[in-house]
Amino acid sequence: MDAEPKNSGGGIEPWGDITPDAARRLVSAAVHAFAERGYHATTTRDIASRAGMSPAALYIHYKTKEELLYQISKVGHERALEIVERERDSAGTPAERLARAVRAFVRWHAEHHMTARVVQYELGALAEEHHAEVIAVRKATDGAVRSIIEDGVKAGAFDVPDVRGATVAVLSLCIDVARWFNARGRSTPDEVGDLYAGLVLRMVGADGGQDRRP
Amino acid sequence: MDAEPKNSGGGIEPWGDITPDAARRLVSAAVHAFAERGYHATTTRDIASRAGMSPAALYIHYKTKEELLYQISKVGHERALEIVERERDSAGTPAERLARAVRAFVRWHAEHHMTARVVQYELGALAEEHHAEVIAVRKATDGAVRSIIEDGVKAGAFDVPDVRGATVAVLSLCIDVARWFNARGRSTPDEVGDLYAGLVLRMVGADGGQDRRP
Repeated sequence: MDAEPKNSGGGIEPWGDITPDAARRLVSAAVHAFAERGYHATTTRDIASRAGMSPAALYIHYKTKEELLYQISKVGHERALEIVERERDSAGTPAERLARAVRAFVRWHAEHHMTARVVQYELGALAEEHHAEVIAVRKATDGAVRSIIEDGVKAGAFDVPDVRGATVAVLSLCIDVARWFNARGRSTPDEVGDLYAGLVLRMVGADGGQDRRP
Repeated sequence: MDAEPKNSGGGIEPWGDITPDAARRLVSAAVHAFAERGYHATTTRDIASRAGMSPAALYIHYKTKEELLYQISKVGHERALEIVERERDSAGTPAERLARAVRAFVRWHAEHHMTARVVQYELGALAEEHHAEVIAVRKATDGAVRSIIEDGVKAGAFDVPDVRGATVAVLSLCIDVARWFNARGRSTPDEVGDLYAGLVLRMVGADGGQDRRP
């Protein structure tokens, strides 16, 4: 499992807002344990031990292992949504906003690939009401990307026969970065972000911002 | 977890070639167990029980849980490689061959999303020599897709500034179908395959087979 920076700049670190410090350490320990062994094979004892705490100390902050997964999934999904909504609401043409959204979304999945893997692959282990809450955040993220694509289509700048299908594909391309990204590999998160922003502009028929329509 | 057809046509069923029948049943049971609970949380006893067999009967065919994961990963990766190599070596323009490869690769990941998830997400649990063997098959699959893209670039039919990066993106887009595909969702494997083939042709600057160069 690749290393993931535990504190790579306050703005990017997804757990920076969790207080107190003990709760934040437990969330970070849970991410690493879930990513390494999977949710079902991890015990609260494993997580407490990784955080240098006793099971009783863990219990003060989180009553169950599922509560930890919920915290991780909720924060992870909310950070991803914020990133996309910020670019949706920013100034610029639809092509500029879509490119920035893809760059930021890819960077998030590359830099926090361990968190992102847990968030994406252990979704089925959430309790029903938590699952529903996280799915609502995912739908909002889908909606934010879709609305940028729709803006481009309305402006005649994008050519997208199936907006819903293209939205799924754009998000899917970005999310899968979490699976294959290797911090010791040949590309930095920014390089992958730039490459993917260019590929996505081609997917929506913007081709680097040039309108190819007659 | 979505249902996955256990025997959806001899040519597509990835375990059809495994004999005897008991070994094939064990592999199928292991896929379902790993997909539901993760590799580390699954015991050989769980797998035997799902296959309606005793742990001793499992032991006749597979000495360890890792041997089962290796069998699943090896067969899964080899089937994916066959699919892509068949299209690489088929007749037609690079755009036609790339579109067919993407359609077939997407269809495989959609139809066998449960197997594909195990194959993709439990790679790190393989023993070192098995991991190396599976990575070699993955590299061959990458190479097959890359060679179709290179053919298109050489023929002046594709416009790809970063062939290696574009190859990663094309494979990534297809593989992530295994994560989100839902057999009860709005799209069939063939519909996703058609959509993605069109998007990939745009990514490589082929745009439906039309050469946009001057």
